[in-house]
Amino acid sequence: MAEAATVRRSRITPEREAELYEAVLDLLREVGYDALTMDAVAARTRSSKATLYRQWGGKPELVVKAVRHSKPGPFEGVDTGTLRGDLHAHMEQTDDCEMEQNAGLMRGLAMAVHNNPDLLREFREKLVEPEMAEFDRVLQRAVDRGEIRADNPALGYVTHMMVGAFVARGLIEDRPPTRAFLTSYIDAVVLPALGVSANR
Amino acid sequence: MAEAATVRRSRITPEREAELYEAVLDLLREVGYDALTMDAVAARTRSSKATLYRQWGGKPELVVKAVRHSKPGPFEGVDTGTLRGDLHAHMEQTDDCEMEQNAGLMRGLAMAVHNNPDLLREFREKLVEPEMAEFDRVLQRAVDRGEIRADNPALGYVTHMMVGAFVARGLIEDRPPTRAFLTSYIDAVVLPALGVSANR
Repeated sequence: MAEAATVRRSRITPEREAELYEAVLDLLREVGYDALTMDAVAARTRSSKATLYRQWGGKPELVVKAVRHSKPGPFEGVDTGTLRGDLHAHMEQTDDCEMEQNAGLMRGLAMAVHNNPDLLREFREKLVEPEMAEFDRVLQRAVDRGEIRADNPALGYVTHMMVGAFVARGLIEDRPPTRAFLTSYIDAVVLPALGVSANR
Repeated sequence: MAEAATVRRSRITPEREAELYEAVLDLLREVGYDALTMDAVAARTRSSKATLYRQWGGKPELVVKAVRHSKPGPFEGVDTGTLRGDLHAHMEQTDDCEMEQNAGLMRGLAMAVHNNPDLLREFREKLVEPEMAEFDRVLQRAVDRGEIRADNPALGYVTHMMVGAFVARGLIEDRPPTRAFLTSYIDAVVLPALGVSANR
């Protein structure tokens, strides 16, 4: 089975795969998750539906894979030696235009997961949990360095604070999150809640 | 005009008004904002569409009024003498079941406002801005009492933190926000970010 999967996969080049994910994201932005069909993906990318199903298994898997492909891990290659440095570096990885696009995508998905248990499972397993695990590693390093007390109760809420800022910006101010906004939120809220000075 | 409006309004008793708002919220939960029609509201409440339009002006106004009617102002009658007391009292006003219903409603509306400029305007003017103003009053009292430094940068982000926790709970944990969760979030995140001890 594993070998067969490898052979099958090898038919699609990384370039072709990236192209396909881009088309899925475009469709997602245009029509939203519920109205997105595998037929439309097949037509847009000139692939057969059979190939799509064989390669990805189904719509939730394909959509989450496409989203994951479009954004790097939050802390890939980041290790600056301070928590503030790491969080700021995380913000530097995405420009404001990408951030606005991501915010739109995530808004659509967040809505869709409530009506699609399969999407919810994929979304949690492939996006939410890996990102939370990366956050936890960065926080653990800060604890190990003595920047954060291991029993600080805010440690369990860092992803809530971050996702919250990301979402609330749109909800409260009807503006997309920007790098400047999130960086100042990190300094004003996240670091002080963790007992870390924002001036280091 | 004002007198005519008063005469018209007086035809609807507060009980009838409450009943009507309840029906709007039920419909909103069942079909969502976009699929909700004034015809359906009229049928469900046995009113004429003309009455609905005359009384409320339109769908965005009616929906936002219904939502606003269902939840008290966040700090109505609350003034405990400490910020922590005020924020905790705010949480006591809503039970977990109502909170879950509110979260669902707000999720639907947050999605809908992005495609409906009229709804967005009503939503901001009648719900978001009044709630933020109430939060600001509570925070100003804490500044006046000397609990928070007037130049604390987290002061501008308190509603972001709160809305964020509310929304992120569903997104990250796929669980509705509960009173216990939000109260512990206040103690772990909001108060420390504001430089207020959570032990007072």
